[in-house]
Amino acid sequence: MKKVVVAMDSFKGCLSSTEAEKAAEEGVKQVCPDCEVVCFPIADGGEGMLDVLVEATEGAYQKVIAGDPLMRPIETAYGVSGDKRIAFIEMAAVNGLPLLSATERNPMLTTTYGTGELILHAIEHGYREFIIGIGGSATNDAGLGMLQALGFRFYDQNGEILGKGGQILDQIVAIDFSSVHPALKDARFTIACDVRNPFSGPEGAAYVFARQKGADGAMIEKLDAGMKRFSRLIHSTTGREITEVAGAGAAGGLGGAFLAFLNAELKPGIELLLRTLKFDEKIKDADLIITGEGRVDRQSVMGKVPFGILEEANKQGIPVIVVAGSIADTEVLNKAGFRGIFSIVPSPMSLEVAMKPEAAKNNISRTVAQIISLATL
Amino acid sequence: MKKVVVAMDSFKGCLSSTEAEKAAEEGVKQVCPDCEVVCFPIADGGEGMLDVLVEATEGAYQKVIAGDPLMRPIETAYGVSGDKRIAFIEMAAVNGLPLLSATERNPMLTTTYGTGELILHAIEHGYREFIIGIGGSATNDAGLGMLQALGFRFYDQNGEILGKGGQILDQIVAIDFSSVHPALKDARFTIACDVRNPFSGPEGAAYVFARQKGADGAMIEKLDAGMKRFSRLIHSTTGREITEVAGAGAAGGLGGAFLAFLNAELKPGIELLLRTLKFDEKIKDADLIITGEGRVDRQSVMGKVPFGILEEANKQGIPVIVVAGSIADTEVLNKAGFRGIFSIVPSPMSLEVAMKPEAAKNNISRTVAQIISLATL
Repeated sequence: MKKVVVAMDSFKGCLSSTEAEKAAEEGVKQVCPDCEVVCFPIADGGEGMLDVLVEATEGAYQKVIAGDPLMRPIETAYGVSGDKRIAFIEMAAVNGLPLLSATERNPMLTTTYGTGELILHAIEHGYREFIIGIGGSATNDAGLGMLQALGFRFYDQNGEILGKGGQILDQIVAIDFSSVHPALKDARFTIACDVRNPFSGPEGAAYVFARQKGADGAMIEKLDAGMKRFSRLIHSTTGREITEVAGAGAAGGLGGAFLAFLNAELKPGIELLLRTLKFDEKIKDADLIITGEGRVDRQSVMGKVPFGILEEANKQGIPVIVVAGSIADTEVLNKAGFRGIFSIVPSPMSLEVAMKPEAAKNNISRTVAQIISLATL
Repeated sequence: MKKVVVAMDSFKGCLSSTEAEKAAEEGVKQVCPDCEVVCFPIADGGEGMLDVLVEATEGAYQKVIAGDPLMRPIETAYGVSGDKRIAFIEMAAVNGLPLLSATERNPMLTTTYGTGELILHAIEHGYREFIIGIGGSATNDAGLGMLQALGFRFYDQNGEILGKGGQILDQIVAIDFSSVHPALKDARFTIACDVRNPFSGPEGAAYVFARQKGADGAMIEKLDAGMKRFSRLIHSTTGREITEVAGAGAAGGLGGAFLAFLNAELKPGIELLLRTLKFDEKIKDADLIITGEGRVDRQSVMGKVPFGILEEANKQGIPVIVVAGSIADTEVLNKAGFRGIFSIVPSPMSLEVAMKPEAAKNNISRTVAQIISLATL
C-alpha cells in the first residue's frame, strides 16, 4: 500500500471532517508508516464549504460590506482561489437564516440582494468564474434581490420599480435588462445544490421551505402563487422553462434565478467540491480510498458524500471503503460499488458513549488500521 | 479467494460455534459464491468437545454404566474415533458438577472413580490412545478415584485400604501398584486442560476451585493439606514432582494424577482439538482463516480459541482475521499476529439487542462479506 486517500464527511455532532480524517490517517500510519496519505476535508455545499475551498486552492478571503436578509449592512466575506480565477460565495454568509432572530424571519421581506452584492464585487474585481453554495437561506424571493443587485429591474403593472422580498413576486409584469452589468454575460456560475425541489407547486420552494423561514399559511400560498406567476414571466421573457427543474426551488427559488438569467448550472455539492479540489488528479495511483460519515445507509447512494467519491474513484478503478458510526443496507451499498462497509463501533454501547469525540477518533483509527492490514494481505 | 477456513468459538449466550460458522460461511458465499469454505466447529475442552471430536473423526459413541461423583450408577458414554484408534472422554459426562444438586456438592466425598471406569472400559476394548477433557469436575480427589478404578490401591497408616473422595487425601501412606491394569503402560493420554493452576497451595486446586464444588473453609484447608501430603508421597514413590506443575491442579488434581501415574501430557484444549481435527492438513492452501468469539481482548492471546488457531495458521503463513461481538486491545491482538480484528456491531445498540441470535447471525454474515470483499481487492 503506497497511497491512501481519505475523504470523509463530518460525523455530525461528534467530529468534523478534518478530525475524522486525521483519525483515519493515524490508522493508516499505524499499519503502513511509509504510506502516503492524502486527506480531503469535505463540506458539500453547506456550512464550511467556503473554508474548504479557500484552503484547498490556497486562496484568500475578500471582506465586503453587504446587505443581510433585511438589507442591514454587515461585514461578510467571499473567497477567491489562489490562482485568482474563481470566486467562492456562500450565500448563507450574507443571507443565511442564522443571521435573523426568530421574530425577524419573514420571507415576504427577506432578500437575496446581499448575495448579488458579493457577486457584483467579484465581477468588478475581474472574476468571471463562480462557485456558489446556496444552502441555509433566509429568503423566498426567487433570487430577485440578487438579480436587482446585478442591475435587473422589475416593474409592476403601473410601471413602478418594485422593492424587495418575496412580497413583490406576484406583482412583476416586466423585467428591464438594460442596466444589467455587462460582464455578466461572460460569467459562469456553478451552484452547489443538494436539494431537488422544483421552483413552485406542492414540492416547490414555498410549500417545502418557507415555513421554516417564518411564513404562515397565507404567506406560503401567496409566495407560491407569486413563484408560478414569475416563472411564466421568465418563460415569456427569456424562453426558459424552470418551473419543474429539479433544484430551481433551492434557496427560495435562487436556484431558478441562476438558471433563468445567468450562465449557471446546478451541481451536487460533493461533485462540485471534488472538481474544485482536483480530486481526480490527486487520487491518481491511489491504492485505496477511505470515506465515511456518521451514518451510511441506502440514502448514501443519493448524492451524498460517499457516493460522490465513489463515482470519481470508479473512473480510475480505485476501490472505496466506507467507515461509519452506524451502518445499514450494506447490500445496497455493496451493489452500488463500495468494496467494504465497516462500522467503527467496537461493542454494544449507547449512542452517547459512541459519540464521545475521543472514543469516536479511537474507533476510526482502529477500524482503519484493521482495514489497511486486511487490504495489504 | 479460493479457499476460506472458518473456525469460530461459540458466541456465548447467543450462538453456538456451528451457528456462528454457518453465518460466516454465508458471508463468504455472498461475495465469493465459488469459494471453498471449510468449517471447523470448535469446542475447546469444555462442554461439547466430545461431540465435536466424534463428529470430526466420523466416530461413534460407546454407552457405559459408570459411577457418578457420588458413585451412583448412571448411563453415560465416551466417544471413539472412526478409525477405532482413539477414545474420547469428557470427564464431566460422568463426574461433572452439573450431575449433583447444590446440596449434594461435597468434595470430601465426590470421586473421579467413574472417569476411571470409562478409561478401563476403553482399555479393555483395545483402546490405547486417549483424549480426555477434564473441565467442569465435581471433585477434589486428586484423581484418586480414577486411579482406584484402574487398579491402584491406597493404604492408610494402619494398612487399611482407603475409600473414596477428597477426605482420604491426608491419610494415604502407601500406594500399591500390583493390581494396576497391565495395558496402562502402553496407553497414552492427552489431557485437554485450559487452567494453569498448580496441584496445591494458594493457587492450587483446593483453594481456587473447591469452594464452588461445595467445600467450606475448613474442608479447603484439609483438602489442600491432603494434596500437599499426597504430592510428597507421589514424589517419594514415583520420583515425579507435580506440586508446582501448571495444570496439575485442574479438575481437583486429576491433572496431577495423570502426570504422576500415567503416560500423559496436558495440552490446551484448542491445540488438542486442532490436532485431532487434522486442522493443519485441512487448512492447506487456504487464503484466509476467519475465527472469532463473543468477545476478544488481550486474554485471547492466552490459550484461547483464536490464538490456538493463529498458531497453526502462522506455521503455514495463512492470515487470520477475527470477528467478534465485542473487541478490545486490538493493538495487542495485531501484535500477536492477527491481521484484522472487526466488531460485528453495526451501530450503537444495547447488549440485549446485539445478542439476539438472528441479529448476531446477520451481523456476522455482513461483516464477513465485507472482509472477504476487502481481502479480494
